[in-house]
Amino acid sequence: MKLISGGVCAAEGFTAAGMHCGIRKNKSKRDLSLIYSDRPASAAAVYTTNLVKGAAIGVTRSHIENGTARAVICNSGNANTCNENGTETAERMCELLAEALGIDADDVVVASTGVIGKPLDIAPIAAGIPTLISQLSRDGSSAAAEGIMTTDTVKKEVAVEFTLGGKTCHIGGIAKGSGMIHPNMATMLVFITTDAAISPAMLQKALSHDIASTFNMLSIDGDTSTNDMVTVLANGAAGNEHVNAPGTDFEEFMRALNTVTVALCRAIAGDGEGCTRMMECVVTGAKDEAAAKTAAKAVICSSLVKAMIFGADANFGRVFCAVGYSGADVDVTKMGVCFKSAAGEIEVARGGFSLDFSEEIAKKVLSEHEVTIVVTLSDGDASAAAWGCDLTYDYVRINADYRT
Amino acid sequence: MKLISGGVCAAEGFTAAGMHCGIRKNKSKRDLSLIYSDRPASAAAVYTTNLVKGAAIGVTRSHIENGTARAVICNSGNANTCNENGTETAERMCELLAEALGIDADDVVVASTGVIGKPLDIAPIAAGIPTLISQLSRDGSSAAAEGIMTTDTVKKEVAVEFTLGGKTCHIGGIAKGSGMIHPNMATMLVFITTDAAISPAMLQKALSHDIASTFNMLSIDGDTSTNDMVTVLANGAAGNEHVNAPGTDFEEFMRALNTVTVALCRAIAGDGEGCTRMMECVVTGAKDEAAAKTAAKAVICSSLVKAMIFGADANFGRVFCAVGYSGADVDVTKMGVCFKSAAGEIEVARGGFSLDFSEEIAKKVLSEHEVTIVVTLSDGDASAAAWGCDLTYDYVRINADYRT
Repeated sequence: MKLISGGVCAAEGFTAAGMHCGIRKNKSKRDLSLIYSDRPASAAAVYTTNLVKGAAIGVTRSHIENGTARAVICNSGNANTCNENGTETAERMCELLAEALGIDADDVVVASTGVIGKPLDIAPIAAGIPTLISQLSRDGSSAAAEGIMTTDTVKKEVAVEFTLGGKTCHIGGIAKGSGMIHPNMATMLVFITTDAAISPAMLQKALSHDIASTFNMLSIDGDTSTNDMVTVLANGAAGNEHVNAPGTDFEEFMRALNTVTVALCRAIAGDGEGCTRMMECVVTGAKDEAAAKTAAKAVICSSLVKAMIFGADANFGRVFCAVGYSGADVDVTKMGVCFKSAAGEIEVARGGFSLDFSEEIAKKVLSEHEVTIVVTLSDGDASAAAWGCDLTYDYVRINADYRT
Repeated sequence: MKLISGGVCAAEGFTAAGMHCGIRKNKSKRDLSLIYSDRPASAAAVYTTNLVKGAAIGVTRSHIENGTARAVICNSGNANTCNENGTETAERMCELLAEALGIDADDVVVASTGVIGKPLDIAPIAAGIPTLISQLSRDGSSAAAEGIMTTDTVKKEVAVEFTLGGKTCHIGGIAKGSGMIHPNMATMLVFITTDAAISPAMLQKALSHDIASTFNMLSIDGDTSTNDMVTVLANGAAGNEHVNAPGTDFEEFMRALNTVTVALCRAIAGDGEGCTRMMECVVTGAKDEAAAKTAAKAVICSSLVKAMIFGADANFGRVFCAVGYSGADVDVTKMGVCFKSAAGEIEVARGGFSLDFSEEIAKKVLSEHEVTIVVTLSDGDASAAAWGCDLTYDYVRINADYRT
């Protein structure tokens, strides 16, 4: 397996585009994206568990029910959520796109992201669709990744090449997410494409399994969005033997998918609203995976841990504190903590108590852009990782005046 | 029932003091407090549910087991948590105080607050105790309230006068809490005293019932402290008929206790680390109390709602979003939101959708120091309130360099 470029166009048969259609006032910001497969594709998705759901969620869910799709349309600048005509608008986006592409409206995945509670004007979308389609290209992933960004400061794209039964396959994805990120049995906006041939059922199985240890272990600010969605389209252009049951090929597909999703998780965490550092928490020696996950997620969600990472302050008591209130079944009297980064590693607590450690070295370790907090338990063999970011002045600034 | 001054000394038979003994470097900051009853008192307490617990928690729990206590000693500047000699130090604080006061060590409640994982030096405490005792006075509540403060910017004291069976009784309390505030079946540091005569069992019953709708509905930053504790001492000096069963007197006592605890909750919320506004969320029309509480707490815990309140931005979608992911059993299609404060009231959403509203008026309403978010449901008759504060640059500043 190797990392390649191309994002959602790394897989054969996929093209993409992103444009400014006019939903946003800032004309230099793309606000409408399209991903298109030149043939029908297996489709799988997971959605937010928030009871308040963007209108696009319901429309996409019903379109994907039959296990196939060919196109993804997504706008930024408006979430189309809590609007009386929301569902109508989301359906209309699909119809307009389907007509122009000559495909069925129920083969369109639709998504929206941005402010909640402001009606979404269909006019700029309707006017933009012909241009968007004319711009579809094998080099379009980057423009599509830009078109779905909200407060993101960098676009998130990743792709890998892998082999199934001797055939070269590709899988790649784009993501947006910077705030309101705390996925729960679903996630932020992520669109993944692959040319592997795989049945809708196995594709859904792979996705649902994967997100439990990837997007569901990511939190920027503890707020689960109303518009979260991850979709995967698999168009079979690679010509591999169809994956329609568990086995070696399915496992290899799962590994490729996981490589893409972990990379997107890290990219989203590293671009959290206002963040200066990506923070990873690895819990080892847990009684079971549930305990490891619960503890790791509590650490990356803690406002105090997040502020401590911003200050590069080795205040390990806050890590202990978060594990302690997480609800995870752990023996805190055996707990240890060390901090790791490109600058080195430093152990700060062991057996439930603090150690003497060099504040100077700790500061150096915690001052890197990517920091790992390792929590060692002595309760068993299970481990888990979770990703987040520091809490900064800029997070507050961005969210105090988001609408204005 | 009427509000009076005097804090923990409002009740007959109680004296208090607070001094600088030397745990903190800053000599102008009191760091050791004492509350003393001239006679044995019924005692009740609730503690943090964090698995990582300050050493004082275990020592107090064993001292209160028999239902009586006479003195409370509390230091700030060091939490005495995650230290190998922590329990020994907490026990020693009780012994030294008991010896000097001529009471039993197991009639002493001990508490500590401050940084985690740094050994607590007993020397300044031992040296300070004689002075502390010599300063005990009926006017000492204010000094005691100051001695337990950490990042608090104002001291928290409240007291009320009420009547039980024709006898005038008093109940009052002091509290500290500004960060790491997200009580869960327990709370931050709160010491309450009363001269009502009430049995330990009924006192514990009153306290345990009360905190479910007061301190457990308070959150500054989502982090449950390792050192949370609320204690009540009732010394019977008021001469009322002993309350040892449910009934009118017990209910009146509960009302007085609740008046004190709600006032302390609001005081803690209004002094949250770095905060500029106290935020209350009231949920009405819920199916049951559990749904109302879960929804209210999710709103005040949301980083995005907190940042929006800092910016006085009527972005009600974030309130909808928080209720939606809270896990509360609610019908979001009937949900409404209005904002209230001393400047007026404005409805911004109804029936699951946004309303047209004046941004100017909304800004005015949200710019007050105390702001209430009212979430109206149409699922039943239950309601609940929760308290928190806005998320500001200063919260980040305070917690990025807490130790240094």
